[in-house]
Amino acid sequence: MSDASSFDPVFRSRLHALLAWRRDVRRFHRDPLPEGTIERLIGLACLAPSVGLSQPWRFVLVDLPARRAALRSNFLHCNAAALAMQAPERAQHYARLKLAGLDRAPCQLAVFADPMTRQGHGLGRHTMPQTIDYSAVIAAHSLWLIARAEGIGMGWISILDPAAVAAALDVPSQWRLIGYFCLGYPEDSDTVPALERAGWEHRRRPGEFLVRR
Amino acid sequence: MSDASSFDPVFRSRLHALLAWRRDVRRFHRDPLPEGTIERLIGLACLAPSVGLSQPWRFVLVDLPARRAALRSNFLHCNAAALAMQAPERAQHYARLKLAGLDRAPCQLAVFADPMTRQGHGLGRHTMPQTIDYSAVIAAHSLWLIARAEGIGMGWISILDPAAVAAALDVPSQWRLIGYFCLGYPEDSDTVPALERAGWEHRRRPGEFLVRR
Repeated sequence: MSDASSFDPVFRSRLHALLAWRRDVRRFHRDPLPEGTIERLIGLACLAPSVGLSQPWRFVLVDLPARRAALRSNFLHCNAAALAMQAPERAQHYARLKLAGLDRAPCQLAVFADPMTRQGHGLGRHTMPQTIDYSAVIAAHSLWLIARAEGIGMGWISILDPAAVAAALDVPSQWRLIGYFCLGYPEDSDTVPALERAGWEHRRRPGEFLVRR
Repeated sequence: MSDASSFDPVFRSRLHALLAWRRDVRRFHRDPLPEGTIERLIGLACLAPSVGLSQPWRFVLVDLPARRAALRSNFLHCNAAALAMQAPERAQHYARLKLAGLDRAPCQLAVFADPMTRQGHGLGRHTMPQTIDYSAVIAAHSLWLIARAEGIGMGWISILDPAAVAAALDVPSQWRLIGYFCLGYPEDSDTVPALERAGWEHRRRPGEFLVRR
């Protein structure tokens, strides 16, 4: 590589491998992350882009057993409701899927966005205020990739009632839940999504998502 | 590294550098991307995670001059409105910022999300339907990182009226605009965001975004 700002073909190839091996992890070992790891990963995730440099991401590390229990209870409730909404021919299949690693993941993290932040002075978000949420999404995705590069798996749980999560975590009322994440060492690694391995859905060719205007 | 699924310290260090050097690029050279590049980058971006494996991202490559002109006109209109909304003490500063590279970027791409897609059979999105949009955001961010690793800059434009963009690009009515992106070879590279260099805003310490529960 010519300087710190350029990246060589070996790196690029490994970056593509990282994208291919990143998974939405549901099955974790119980081993904790080394001391200081999650704080370091969050620090790197804050290099993410944000609308108007607003840095609207808010990370909530959830350790208290009572709060974790409330989250898990909410997931079980929402997942039962989702199961009840399945088409009859898919319900049994749905019931067999493992859709959260809340039972064993040693590290749990909620990510919120603060739409009221004054940071950034409102730049870039008058016509598309949802870019505040998108900025927090990108911070979460950055964390996902950095963690995976260290052999740490991450799983995104969206089968939750956002209002119940906010209440269980006692966060400022204006914060919006982006997602609840489990982190830890995964039981296995794969280039194929778990939902594809389970036969729930399969990935389409990229060309199907591209149109020209 | 031990196998294809693991990543060594050299890679991790360069990955952190990639996050640090990725920028929201506004100043491009006019040189086109090599033939087939954007299609290849989009293919890699489709490795992004998506709720229920729904792959709701829709990429619209915008080449037609009349459509590009409509986009640029919409940006100028929205940016003038945003300028008019600035606090008096910030308006001159705002007027000096360059907030889009639409004048020179050789490649322009709109990203939408399709909330009506049946792919994924609705899994994971009953309580948080916005995860459809978040999936498309992550695909865009994946594209951003992959492009930067090849020396290609990307800039996200959100100062647009989403309905006007959808109309100008003649896309299905249910698609939701995520963002409009310019790609090309950047005039310069930096680890400091352009808005920070311009004195508009500065980044805070990551610890300010972390709370414990």
